[in-house]
Amino acid sequence: MSSHRVTGAAAGQDHPATLSPAEARALFRDGLDTPTAGWSRGFTQANLIIVPRAHAFDVLLFAQRNPKSCPILGVLDAGETSGPLLAGGDIRTDLPRYTVYQDGVLVAEPGDITDWWRDDLVTFVIGCSFTFETALQDAGVPIAHIEQGVNVPMYRTNVRSASAGALSGPMVVSMRPIPADRVAEAVRITARYPAVHGAPVHVGDPSVLGIADLMDPDFGDAVEIGEGDVAVFWACGVTPQAAVMESRPSLAIGHAPGFMLITDARDSDYRVP
Amino acid sequence: MSSHRVTGAAAGQDHPATLSPAEARALFRDGLDTPTAGWSRGFTQANLIIVPRAHAFDVLLFAQRNPKSCPILGVLDAGETSGPLLAGGDIRTDLPRYTVYQDGVLVAEPGDITDWWRDDLVTFVIGCSFTFETALQDAGVPIAHIEQGVNVPMYRTNVRSASAGALSGPMVVSMRPIPADRVAEAVRITARYPAVHGAPVHVGDPSVLGIADLMDPDFGDAVEIGEGDVAVFWACGVTPQAAVMESRPSLAIGHAPGFMLITDARDSDYRVP
Repeated sequence: MSSHRVTGAAAGQDHPATLSPAEARALFRDGLDTPTAGWSRGFTQANLIIVPRAHAFDVLLFAQRNPKSCPILGVLDAGETSGPLLAGGDIRTDLPRYTVYQDGVLVAEPGDITDWWRDDLVTFVIGCSFTFETALQDAGVPIAHIEQGVNVPMYRTNVRSASAGALSGPMVVSMRPIPADRVAEAVRITARYPAVHGAPVHVGDPSVLGIADLMDPDFGDAVEIGEGDVAVFWACGVTPQAAVMESRPSLAIGHAPGFMLITDARDSDYRVP
Repeated sequence: MSSHRVTGAAAGQDHPATLSPAEARALFRDGLDTPTAGWSRGFTQANLIIVPRAHAFDVLLFAQRNPKSCPILGVLDAGETSGPLLAGGDIRTDLPRYTVYQDGVLVAEPGDITDWWRDDLVTFVIGCSFTFETALQDAGVPIAHIEQGVNVPMYRTNVRSASAGALSGPMVVSMRPIPADRVAEAVRITARYPAVHGAPVHVGDPSVLGIADLMDPDFGDAVEIGEGDVAVFWACGVTPQAAVMESRPSLAIGHAPGFMLITDARDSDYRVP
């Protein structure tokens, strides 16, 4: 690691919001292991799913049929390790932490996946709701899990995703408690970001989605729900990951939750008029 | 053919705009061979591409990378012949005319493809600009090729599509001359239909796209361009068909130009807020 990079790393940990995506990826490539929330503000963070070519059509078809939970931002060809979303980068090293599944079983959470790489691996880059959270905050809509310093709560629902080949599973949703008088604003703003989950899939009663207890999420952390807040639910990028893992491919690689790919795309690239 | 259907066919040819999609498809299934422009007004017409499963990932990836020219409305699984876009229908019989390519060579233009069907064939249903033409007309924007009673003119451009596996080729565009004071309105309206090609890709000088002569289109018919009209270009659904045919799969099936699939989806389903 050069002294320049050491300086960069120190600065990055102090002011990660101001780092360029390339600077952030270089730090992770050099071994920094940290969640990416708040990094490279204004640039799009993304979920990662990597599968062998033999499973790639099913993943892409699952995404086509479930665009709200599985918005594809980019696909790298089999064996390809870089692309326009991470110019000059390497998908095998440039995330802070990965998850490696063999036959559906988590076998490692490494900081790079060079040892697992194969020339038949196809990489899918999938939109993440971090993008619209910035827009919500800019409009003064409070985001409870950010204010409370925890991960967003996520829940399996009783709604089935549209299946595709070997892939099926429940829709997973994230939940944000929104003050009743800001719900319409939250819907309006997030609807403008269809590439990163878009408008909510459900507003209000969680039991309709088969969620028994909001304080017991299936993934992430519970958040306190304020007096007068309404539970608002968005389709979640965990949906396709769960479906892929359940289909038990010989190898599948994802990002560790919260340890995202920081892309060169700007959040505003994904806003529709 | 029942006497009811004979009556329906006669009525359909008189008033095709008022037929339901299922009624229209039944007429085509029974052998009616006619272009579909103006049929089942308000319902979405679509392009068709059918390829063997071995080529399906490339087609879906080409679509993901070229969303303006190749907007996917639906995909039928390998061997599947019906789906929600054509409820109760059969993709092998319900279009008025098909094109069948073997090794990239057109070998037939049949009224049904039952004889060519294989259980490994995957059907892609792709958006068509007929949808936004209705919206333009509703706003009083004139559509020259409809007023002149000809097919829309289409041109190969010097813009390359993003390639995907074996698929590559030029972007093909359709052109509509629009009065200068309505161009902004035409952009605004079509931008609201991203699933059916969306906003124009180019406004004005055709030479920038490598088009030497607007009166000599590569597909469709030339249209007269009025004094004060501006040439406006939209990405065209011929783009993916051309790329698929050029890759010379053992078998590929499309619709004959203008002889579209009439789906059960409504044009308004594809309008964004």
